[in-house]
Amino acid sequence: MTTKYKDVYIADVSTVVGPYEAKGPLSKRFDRSYEDMYFGTDSLETAEVKLMTDSIDILLNKLKKDKSDIDLFIAGDLQNQIATSSYTAGKIKRPFLGIYSACATNTEGLIMASNFLESKTCDEVVVSVSSHNMVAEKQFRNPTEYGAPKPGTATFTATGGASCYLTTKKSKVRIASSTIGIVQDYDQTDPMDMGAVMAPAAANTINDHLNNLDQTVDDYDLILTGDLGIYGKEILIDFMKTEYGIDISNKYNDCGTMLYDLEEQKDVQAGGSGPVCSALVVYSDIIKKLQNKELKRVLYVATGALFNPTMVFQKENILSIAHAISLESVE
Amino acid sequence: MTTKYKDVYIADVSTVVGPYEAKGPLSKRFDRSYEDMYFGTDSLETAEVKLMTDSIDILLNKLKKDKSDIDLFIAGDLQNQIATSSYTAGKIKRPFLGIYSACATNTEGLIMASNFLESKTCDEVVVSVSSHNMVAEKQFRNPTEYGAPKPGTATFTATGGASCYLTTKKSKVRIASSTIGIVQDYDQTDPMDMGAVMAPAAANTINDHLNNLDQTVDDYDLILTGDLGIYGKEILIDFMKTEYGIDISNKYNDCGTMLYDLEEQKDVQAGGSGPVCSALVVYSDIIKKLQNKELKRVLYVATGALFNPTMVFQKENILSIAHAISLESVE
Repeated sequence: MTTKYKDVYIADVSTVVGPYEAKGPLSKRFDRSYEDMYFGTDSLETAEVKLMTDSIDILLNKLKKDKSDIDLFIAGDLQNQIATSSYTAGKIKRPFLGIYSACATNTEGLIMASNFLESKTCDEVVVSVSSHNMVAEKQFRNPTEYGAPKPGTATFTATGGASCYLTTKKSKVRIASSTIGIVQDYDQTDPMDMGAVMAPAAANTINDHLNNLDQTVDDYDLILTGDLGIYGKEILIDFMKTEYGIDISNKYNDCGTMLYDLEEQKDVQAGGSGPVCSALVVYSDIIKKLQNKELKRVLYVATGALFNPTMVFQKENILSIAHAISLESVE
Repeated sequence: MTTKYKDVYIADVSTVVGPYEAKGPLSKRFDRSYEDMYFGTDSLETAEVKLMTDSIDILLNKLKKDKSDIDLFIAGDLQNQIATSSYTAGKIKRPFLGIYSACATNTEGLIMASNFLESKTCDEVVVSVSSHNMVAEKQFRNPTEYGAPKPGTATFTATGGASCYLTTKKSKVRIASSTIGIVQDYDQTDPMDMGAVMAPAAANTINDHLNNLDQTVDDYDLILTGDLGIYGKEILIDFMKTEYGIDISNKYNDCGTMLYDLEEQKDVQAGGSGPVCSALVVYSDIIKKLQNKELKRVLYVATGALFNPTMVFQKENILSIAHAISLESVE
């Protein structure tokens, strides 16, 4: 489902990261980084809550706004029952909608916010996402086998919190359109190869978005997927060509391959993942390039693998989805 | 956040239940009931997927619609990573947004759908929820202690799937307004007493809804909470009086106390719960009374307890939220 927007603007964004992300190529562009994985909290789970709440505090500070200015708070994360988002909402104390699309959660939130703003239902919306590497490892791979080797196709859940303040008031970057994705099932069953799982969803959504808006790849300076990783990225380029006859290779990059130095930071294997991965790359780098007009139009396609450990143990397929938004530099 | 709608109608609804719900007082009003807990599937988790997909098939049949008529599918459930909704979306193959507000998920979905319809972003939206007693027991109380007594304040997760087809086309029942709730934290820590956890959220949302619309209790024939159970119901009546000076006692009921025969079905303790609990009561009974004008205006306030087992083990408070919609019989 593709929708155009006239009056949806990004007032500002914020990013908070853990130590491993702070060693990556975007290091100097994050608003805050921590040197350990607990950030002064008592547990990994509350540490993730701190990542998200920190990102909101930083965002409100940048804009000289108060929590009470927020009409609506939309958030999602990987913790069971999206606990990070709920506990953050408990601190924000503003109307809250909880969402989940795995690593596609950020664009789901931005699309929902755009809809509320475009319809003038409200004027100021904050969308937040987070993930925490150790919370995800503990939850999705319990019992976690320390030291067990992972295949090169595995991705590394990013640790961070990221927030976006959206308004109806003109700013330097706007959300021009969006496409809500359709769940794809390509008989994938390997949670250690998420790139292969998610590439068809990204392809389907990119094709829908371009078709529905009568656009081509040339309408964008950059097409950016969420977190397919180095192998998923290649699969997507091939898949777009063979399935839809569209060559994205000259305009395309993947946030999962941009968050870390894949040569130096070998632990991340094929790249970063987690709901915050694409948000960290887009908010620390891409939005700034749109603000200063280095980039004019970017198609941001967050991708999510839909499953849970029980379903995987039961040999159910891992499904995928991708939601796209078109970001434009405002004249 | 309270919003009024002009053109949001409920075309029809559907309900599918398990054996225990089929023995309750609403028995004859459900569209389909099963006699075991697996419904011909291989696992409890895929059984829950069947509940949700069945409810959509029944709904489409009633309306002589096809899956391709659905512009947008919104769904949520209690399974980790809302797996029921994702796997159902994998069968529906329409644009999908996953949501989570625990047992308040149904009204979250209906509010989101209303916003998409009112803004003419799309014309036909299906909202689905589900829960499965044994999936919830397995997931939230693992290792499940068979035969261990539960306190009388505990509630019983309902087994069922429920769907609602919303359109911009006039029908006999409309959604007239909604209020998105704010997360409440009243230092509650007992997952066996959810009524006490959720009552303040229901109170806060009812008060906001009435205030923001300049309404009183007299504007409604019925105020209906999600699943507070017998004790939570009493707490809400008291809380509304002492905190907001509002007496709801003459107009008020709770879906958790209506789904089962609390005298005969002792296993349910204080009443039913789960995202599907309030949906089963509203869709099998209340909507029909609105359709035939036995009821004119109903305030439906689904209530959710926000936590996960890890957070409870770590002695974090259990938070709560409630989202309200006003249902009106159309002249």
